[in-house]
Amino acid sequence: MLVVMKHGASETEVQAVVDEIERLGYEARAMPGKQRTTVGLMGNDGGVDAARIQGLLGVLEIIPVTKPYKQVSREWRDSDTVVELDNGVRFGGEEINIIAGPCAVEGAQDILDIAHQLKEAGATVLRGGAFKPRTSPYSWQGLGEEGLKMLARAREATGMAIVTEALDPEGVDLVAQYADIIQIGARNMQNYPVLRRAGRSNKPVLLKRGMSATIDELLLAAEYILAEGNEQVILCERGVRSFDTHTRNLLDLTAIPVVKSLSHLPIIADPSHGTGIREKVIPMARAAVAAGADGLMVEVHANPPEARSDGAQSLYPEQFKELMEQIRMIANAIGREVQRPV
Amino acid sequence: MLVVMKHGASETEVQAVVDEIERLGYEARAMPGKQRTTVGLMGNDGGVDAARIQGLLGVLEIIPVTKPYKQVSREWRDSDTVVELDNGVRFGGEEINIIAGPCAVEGAQDILDIAHQLKEAGATVLRGGAFKPRTSPYSWQGLGEEGLKMLARAREATGMAIVTEALDPEGVDLVAQYADIIQIGARNMQNYPVLRRAGRSNKPVLLKRGMSATIDELLLAAEYILAEGNEQVILCERGVRSFDTHTRNLLDLTAIPVVKSLSHLPIIADPSHGTGIREKVIPMARAAVAAGADGLMVEVHANPPEARSDGAQSLYPEQFKELMEQIRMIANAIGREVQRPV
Amino acid sequence: MLVVMKHGASETEVQAVVDEIERLGYEARAMPGKQRTTVGLMGNDGGVDAARIQGLLGVLEIIPVTKPYKQVSREWRDSDTVVELDNGVRFGGEEINIIAGPCAVEGAQDILDIAHQLKEAGATVLRGGAFKPRTSPYSWQGLGEEGLKMLARAREATGMAIVTEALDPEGVDLVAQYADIIQIGARNMQNYPVLRRAGRSNKPVLLKRGMSATIDELLLAAEYILAEGNEQVILCERGVRSFDTHTRNLLDLTAIPVVKSLSHLPIIADPSHGTGIREKVIPMARAAVAAGADGLMVEVHANPPEARSDGAQSLYPEQFKELMEQIRMIANAIGREVQRPV
Amino acid sequence: MLVVMKHGASETEVQAVVDEIERLGYEARAMPGKQRTTVGLMGNDGGVDAARIQGLLGVLEIIPVTKPYKQVSREWRDSDTVVELDNGVRFGGEEINIIAGPCAVEGAQDILDIAHQLKEAGATVLRGGAFKPRTSPYSWQGLGEEGLKMLARAREATGMAIVTEALDPEGVDLVAQYADIIQIGARNMQNYPVLRRAGRSNKPVLLKRGMSATIDELLLAAEYILAEGNEQVILCERGVRSFDTHTRNLLDLTAIPVVKSLSHLPIIADPSHGTGIREKVIPMARAAVAAGADGLMVEVHANPPEARSDGAQSLYPEQFKELMEQIRMIANAIGREVQRPV
Repeated sequence: MLVVMKHGASETEVQAVVDEIERLGYEARAMPGKQRTTVGLMGNDGGVDAARIQGLLGVLEIIPVTKPYKQVSREWRDSDTVVELDNGVRFGGEEINIIAGPCAVEGAQDILDIAHQLKEAGATVLRGGAFKPRTSPYSWQGLGEEGLKMLARAREATGMAIVTEALDPEGVDLVAQYADIIQIGARNMQNYPVLRRAGRSNKPVLLKRGMSATIDELLLAAEYILAEGNEQVILCERGVRSFDTHTRNLLDLTAIPVVKSLSHLPIIADPSHGTGIREKVIPMARAAVAAGADGLMVEVHANPPEARSDGAQSLYPEQFKELMEQIRMIANAIGREVQRPV
Repeated sequence: MLVVMKHGASETEVQAVVDEIERLGYEARAMPGKQRTTVGLMGNDGGVDAARIQGLLGVLEIIPVTKPYKQVSREWRDSDTVVELDNGVRFGGEEINIIAGPCAVEGAQDILDIAHQLKEAGATVLRGGAFKPRTSPYSWQGLGEEGLKMLARAREATGMAIVTEALDPEGVDLVAQYADIIQIGARNMQNYPVLRRAGRSNKPVLLKRGMSATIDELLLAAEYILAEGNEQVILCERGVRSFDTHTRNLLDLTAIPVVKSLSHLPIIADPSHGTGIREKVIPMARAAVAAGADGLMVEVHANPPEARSDGAQSLYPEQFKELMEQIRMIANAIGREVQRPV
Repeated sequence: MLVVMKHGASETEVQAVVDEIERLGYEARAMPGKQRTTVGLMGNDGGVDAARIQGLLGVLEIIPVTKPYKQVSREWRDSDTVVELDNGVRFGGEEINIIAGPCAVEGAQDILDIAHQLKEAGATVLRGGAFKPRTSPYSWQGLGEEGLKMLARAREATGMAIVTEALDPEGVDLVAQYADIIQIGARNMQNYPVLRRAGRSNKPVLLKRGMSATIDELLLAAEYILAEGNEQVILCERGVRSFDTHTRNLLDLTAIPVVKSLSHLPIIADPSHGTGIREKVIPMARAAVAAGADGLMVEVHANPPEARSDGAQSLYPEQFKELMEQIRMIANAIGREVQRPV
Repeated sequence: MLVVMKHGASETEVQAVVDEIERLGYEARAMPGKQRTTVGLMGNDGGVDAARIQGLLGVLEIIPVTKPYKQVSREWRDSDTVVELDNGVRFGGEEINIIAGPCAVEGAQDILDIAHQLKEAGATVLRGGAFKPRTSPYSWQGLGEEGLKMLARAREATGMAIVTEALDPEGVDLVAQYADIIQIGARNMQNYPVLRRAGRSNKPVLLKRGMSATIDELLLAAEYILAEGNEQVILCERGVRSFDTHTRNLLDLTAIPVVKSLSHLPIIADPSHGTGIREKVIPMARAAVAAGADGLMVEVHANPPEARSDGAQSLYPEQFKELMEQIRMIANAIGREVQRPV
């Protein structure tokens, strides 16, 4: 950590920074520069709370050198974390896995039918929302626990793993009973009670990047889960807020190699929410795999015009099938492989 | 609502849109244009879920004309909502009220001392966090219920109202027992279980704008609270995410007149989180009042360099006193008045 | 174009809008809604200047339905424009072409050496700046016309086409004398005198997207060139401004399929400026091709640590060679082909 | 400047950084940290081109401590620059000055009439575009030199100073012949040939912040002008690009105190372009003065619905008059004064 002093900061002010750093148990090294003095904090183990120093007189800014996260970092663990599900599906290894399904679970037969089609096309994990966070209180909010049961039956019937979203701490426990992966959505990326509860569950967690979260904030959110003892975290890039209105979000695929270099956790991409438009999902799904994603999460609906939500961004089953073929070829081009359903 | 068809959409596709609109119980009007046909949905009462139409074949985009919120809008209620607290403090009327206090409650005596100083300077509401949402799991997270009790004692001693943040549905109930206003922070602006619980409490709610929330999303979040029966909502602009790193956030003061024209709810500004830098808090606090804010929320600490959090953005008590004087003059310049503590 | 009236706009105000539309030579259709009246402008040929109507009393907002650009749009010309250079290189057809070279031309022998290496690896166009726009006036600004001559000699020696940037109207003429493609950089995307001069040259133009330009603004900038009679325009996505500091810009690959659906012009991607970091260039170059880019522009330097500018984002020649191989496979996966140098 | 090495960088790599720094004529100080080594560059005079170091092996990132600009900084010159015009109007002193006028000069009599009204209300500088940069090539682009002559006649008649925009280097010379202040617009903030030409003129320059320019980039653009010998620069905040569509731009008023602390140059605000909506111009104009702006630039038109451009954001003359009165009171509240026309 580097403490930059204001131009003209007094020696007393510099000394106060040095003293505070030493009081916190670290080594301080003052470096007088031509324009301003800087004080280096040496031996930072990631646990320094900069607020105390930032408030001292004469301090211009704090420049973090050590990253604020620990357990999620490559420094903590160099080798890739592989999250392995009960049905053998692996995120974070050589294989690429595709999560697919409707935005929301709409009915028992519907989810079963689409699951069979998706597995046939090559998906290994089934998605479907039972608790839907909706921007408007007047939009439909999902089937609740009934939806979870329908997902569980689809899993029994197909052998696919299932992932679904939890919205609050109790929801985390409920989802953990039914699903293979607990999803924490973009709106809840910094919902700390939910993160902590997921960290105390024994289920893998799919953590989506917040609407305008920096990559460091995404990793710090994951750190909340690891700090509670759960290392089975899969990150998900799903687009960030932007100024262009042609797409719902701006899919930040560069986040994939950036996360890969900072962290050992697997990362996948969600081109459906990342674009919001069916025709853009396919090229961006391909691009995500080419950029190094460990998997994809794609919305597919048997009949998108009839979908109760996100119809405009849901693929038709035939489109999904075609996409899977392209993805297999791209995976091969970069020395990876799409994992086959069991 | 306007449904814009793709260039070259067939008559059958246009008719399908017309049919769907009528099936939903609204009137449809097709308008063939030079480049593309548009279909108007007439009689929209704000309750149309656009997803069904968006997924239809040949649809290019949906352009909302009716706003997606109802009860928060000026169309629903033309006259300004005034949120009045037990001690007579009013948000949303002619008066301007100043909420001030430390980032977090740090101790019983500390909060009492600063409360007296703030009241003396002219603040009518005391702030102080008991449950702190922190980006890093390793940062200090507040005193919890103990902090709430300290705030309650400061209220008894000074007659000030108190506001403090809740992080989850249970927290809402707990905060409602102690505080005059329940604060929902930026990270939780779309935490729907929390919004709903606050909507079922009988306490005023201070709802902060999310990190990159649009103004429509802020109003829709407030709609969740009103939809549960609680109309006592105060909105708060606290800065949005930006690309410039000189300040913590970009304080969007234009949001104040924009919200004022769209909604009857009061809106205040938080220049402390909006800038993150002590020296910038003062000019931006003045600017917020000049822009028409119904109040301010300002962090003040008896000794900022010793603050356990947000020291760098906390004012010294003397600075706050001086700020209050400037604010009174600016309020007068625009025909308003800073409400005096009782 | 849709004119949305304010809630409570008077009949006289609505009529004034209707009259103005008719005065401009278009047909108006008023649609009274539940909350507000809207007036449709029919027969818009893309030439309506909305400013006049926007200023009328009672107007809330103007919603464009017809896009503001004409000649660049798919409506104007449905089939893809193919920009073909003298050496047979084609942008916008089935083939994918790779532009590569150093950030700046640094010396006659250097540019010759790297050109041979790049051609060997499969690049068909050589890049290299002679006039460098630099954020700081104290940074090195390029070799000027001397650099153009060095590029021309490298073309003679290798048969590669060359592309280089112009910074002002005179520069456009100068670059047109030496280069096969005139580059207009991100900072000059809305430099209208430069766009017009390029539109009057007889050379293909590579137009880079501005730092925070919307896709519509990029297309309108291209429209300036086409409006002067030059249809040989290649667009280039090179990253937009964002809030995350891990990369120099946020490469918006979704812009590729979005532009493809709106316009007939070819579009390539520049992953070097789009990321600013050598290790991220490779995955993002692959992703751009997977997303449907018609080509790439990549910075390569014989010895990046010695580069006078952009060393940190320049590939080593061996990295570029390896990248070319992956790109060929990805191109095949989506039914395209990387064009071979002549 | 701080060079942060990658985790695990070798001693040879660290030494290469030290050597390069010394070769450039500065002192290097290596600091081994717990996670990574950093190398400080001491004695930076603002002239280090970081590109060479950034490209070295093992370098993770370069953290600038010294700001990249020199002459515009408070370190270079501590006391405020006051730009004084021929008619005695001063920007950057205790006084506040208001620039007002139509978006574009539309006719000789029109500009004369409005000038008289504006002067009467208290404006000291007249604005009006003669060369209009328009997003669409089909929008009206101004009266050209004819417009400049009309402005000059309005100056003679009223004693007001005049400011108008130049779009290219020749335009700078032309505008310098007629106007008191040469305006460089947001789209041209990084148009270096224009900046340099303005730096060699002997006229004050009004430099507007680019659409998504950081404050450092704005100051570096000003540095181009000062580096050519012209210190008479007035900066202008006019809103940055954002994700919310309720306003044309997001007016970043915090930029005012931030620029004030970094630079000695005066800064004004343009609430007309900053909001794009007449009703929002007034509160934001007041807020800008409360935030410490040295002046305002406001669009006023005798009859906004008839304006050829920007009608929706132009004030009516009566609104401007009322605004002037509020601004005078706010100026007094913060110990400043609106300068009276001569």
